[in-house]
Amino acid sequence: MKVGTVAATVVSTISHRSLEGKTLLLVDFEGLDGQPTGAYTIAVDTVGTGVGERVLVLDEGSSARHILQEDDAPIRAVIVGTVDAVDRAPAAS
Amino acid sequence: MKVGTVAATVVSTISHRSLEGKTLLLVDFEGLDGQPTGAYTIAVDTVGTGVGERVLVLDEGSSARHILQEDDAPIRAVIVGTVDAVDRAPAAS
Amino acid sequence: MKVGTVAATVVSTISHRSLEGKTLLLVDFEGLDGQPTGAYTIAVDTVGTGVGERVLVLDEGSSARHILQEDDAPIRAVIVGTVDAVDRAPAAS
Amino acid sequence: MKVGTVAATVVSTISHRSLEGKTLLLVDFEGLDGQPTGAYTIAVDTVGTGVGERVLVLDEGSSARHILQEDDAPIRAVIVGTVDAVDRAPAAS
Amino acid sequence: MKVGTVAATVVSTISHRSLEGKTLLLVDFEGLDGQPTGAYTIAVDTVGTGVGERVLVLDEGSSARHILQEDDAPIRAVIVGTVDAVDRAPAAS
Repeated sequence: MKVGTVAATVVSTISHRSLEGKTLLLVDFEGLDGQPTGAYTIAVDTVGTGVGERVLVLDEGSSARHILQEDDAPIRAVIVGTVDAVDRAPAAS
Repeated sequence: MKVGTVAATVVSTISHRSLEGKTLLLVDFEGLDGQPTGAYTIAVDTVGTGVGERVLVLDEGSSARHILQEDDAPIRAVIVGTVDAVDRAPAAS
Repeated sequence: MKVGTVAATVVSTISHRSLEGKTLLLVDFEGLDGQPTGAYTIAVDTVGTGVGERVLVLDEGSSARHILQEDDAPIRAVIVGTVDAVDRAPAAS
Repeated sequence: MKVGTVAATVVSTISHRSLEGKTLLLVDFEGLDGQPTGAYTIAVDTVGTGVGERVLVLDEGSSARHILQEDDAPIRAVIVGTVDAVDRAPAAS
Repeated sequence: MKVGTVAATVVSTISHRSLEGKTLLLVDFEGLDGQPTGAYTIAVDTVGTGVGERVLVLDEGSSARHILQEDDAPIRAVIVGTVDAVDRAPAAS
């Protein structure tokens, strides 16, 4: 999975039934320093997020299909959650 | 998925039955700024598009096979739609 | 597989049942010279590791699901072990 | 799929039965400008091509296995055709 | 597949049964010019090779599992052979 920020909504004319009604969001991945990298993917939103939010993206077809509970959905990347924090402190022992 | 612009039609001699009759288009992916990146893939057209059009490409074999409704098609990337807009405004609340 | 160092714990709000209770760690991959590269992934911890530890990451969905013994877990990358050494000496003959 | 030029034949000692007798070709991928990029893969030849020819490479395991009609062949990339032209002219309307 | 040179043995504490007893080798991929690129993967050895040898790496989970004859091994990359030569001469006609 990768962390990124939703940068745009993609408005598209898609004729395939299984993509109808799904929100496609363009996510700008961030680097280790928390800054945007310019690398992106377009993912299906499953959590009701939007432009400006920091999200967790899962990029694997089988996983995406499981998340969406659609065995044959032609989808590879999904937004699976929002990111509250990336905590760099060592775990307390 | 990725957004890109169709840059060329690929004319190829392919001997495998399941690729016959399919249009192969070279898609130049765009970056976050909407400019071409020089990275590309060759995808099967499923929507009747052509050179110069802005399209949405899905790059995963299982998805491609579902889109084409061919369980065993040896294909990885398909053009699944045309892009009308990449809307960067935050969603109205 | 890749070698990297755990750089952070990711705190996320995820609504999907199969990701609940799992620790998500951000792993900074190291290069051939053992230095961090800035490339990273977010992986599910399966060995009880934490920030600062050097780990082995397996990045393939089917493998991740097997490691977790969950046939339909929507997960792609898992930490499968800790790295004790990367030994560059030729094998004794 | 990607377009590239066959740059070399790989001579290898492989002990796995399902790779025996197959020709492994090193393909140098070309960029959007038709120039070699230095990125390459080693693919199984299925069309009887050779050094210097411009080919189409399909890089996905399930597809490769279907092309070779071997359900369990441990192969990921195959040369599926020769490229006759990459035509950048817009389609006639 | 890719060509590379075995650069190190990885000594790791892995608790998963299906990885026990397997030799993990760090392979430094070479570029088209035969020089090391600094990109690497950690692969399971299936041919009895070691540091300094030039090898062929197959990087796909399903293929790796077939090579190892373990249907559920959590492994993605395997060393499938040693490279004797990369022959750039055009095939004799």
